[in-house]
Amino acid sequence: MVPPVDNLIRSLSRLPGLGRRSAERAALALLRKPELLLDTLVSALQEARASVCCCSVCGGFTSKGHEPCGLCTDATRDDALLCVVEEPSDIFSIERSGGFNGRYHALMGKLSPSKQTGPADLRLGTLSERVARGGVKEVLLALSTDMEGDATAGYIGELLKPLGVRVTRLAFGLPADSGVGYSDPLTLKRAITGRMDV
Amino acid sequence: MVPPVDNLIRSLSRLPGLGRRSAERAALALLRKPELLLDTLVSALQEARASVCCCSVCGGFTSKGHEPCGLCTDATRDDALLCVVEEPSDIFSIERSGGFNGRYHALMGKLSPSKQTGPADLRLGTLSERVARGGVKEVLLALSTDMEGDATAGYIGELLKPLGVRVTRLAFGLPADSGVGYSDPLTLKRAITGRMDV
Repeated sequence: MVPPVDNLIRSLSRLPGLGRRSAERAALALLRKPELLLDTLVSALQEARASVCCCSVCGGFTSKGHEPCGLCTDATRDDALLCVVEEPSDIFSIERSGGFNGRYHALMGKLSPSKQTGPADLRLGTLSERVARGGVKEVLLALSTDMEGDATAGYIGELLKPLGVRVTRLAFGLPADSGVGYSDPLTLKRAITGRMDV
Repeated sequence: MVPPVDNLIRSLSRLPGLGRRSAERAALALLRKPELLLDTLVSALQEARASVCCCSVCGGFTSKGHEPCGLCTDATRDDALLCVVEEPSDIFSIERSGGFNGRYHALMGKLSPSKQTGPADLRLGTLSERVARGGVKEVLLALSTDMEGDATAGYIGELLKPLGVRVTRLAFGLPADSGVGYSDPLTLKRAITGRMDV
């Protein structure tokens, strides 16, 4: 294999969702017609690199010079409801669901002993400040449903409850378009615990 | 969505193997820690763009200044056997199989009325020249097993047979780690037609 091609494949395979084989296919497609794919990708990457930053209020992605971001300044959104997410990208997922109309706060990670991420590495100070400033009635924790997400949720609960705010978490249960046969035991157990009247 | 992010997602989703959702995940990962992923990807892309070209003999990828490529100049390979592939990347696939030790010739496509690719768009002239120069005893067509691949194989057969060379094609049959229940009817029909003694 030609070394620069190999190097490109390695760079691409570091992206989530791209294994070695698909990175290889992508690299070869990029090189096959470089003016069509490669050049536009490079300029899109460079443009994004130069102009995208994280909003100083919510931590989500925004264009440089557009701070606070559109979601933080949108007057139609509910200031009393604050959704805490791990990653800036989670904001897009929740927006796409159409089920939330409050403000956001991205932590930039979760508590993780294995990745050596402690409370000081997360945007917890600015979270406390936002809540302490008043106006927020409920903090909805939209965190992962693994052990690290649970630990982070517990930590934030302890942190915010003294401030007199309600702290909630996303419901556990079966995902859409799924069924009992497709669900793992923990999901099922949690769905039973959280069962609802029909 | 922030426009430069959207633009980056669109560029990424044009790569083979990346749908809209995985392009989104990749874009957000690139932006999350740009110095880690985005910068290395941009430089890998730029390096590949600047230094990779197609070998003038076989059409496969090589570094600029290394022409003919390593496969074309390797003295241990068999000059009598020439493998014709559609894309430069197919050469990597065949090399990885370890089943071929001759030379290569990439056509840069296949005959395709729908994509308006005619014989003049393919590297067929240089193929005839290579064969006419003598030394090649067998041309192995490693083309796709769809209608366009069949048409291309037929065309090349007509083109090369007057030159007194044997023209062969990859066997049709069941893929490895598969079975009758997983195979489509045409594959099965071809596997039956090509059945072998045990």
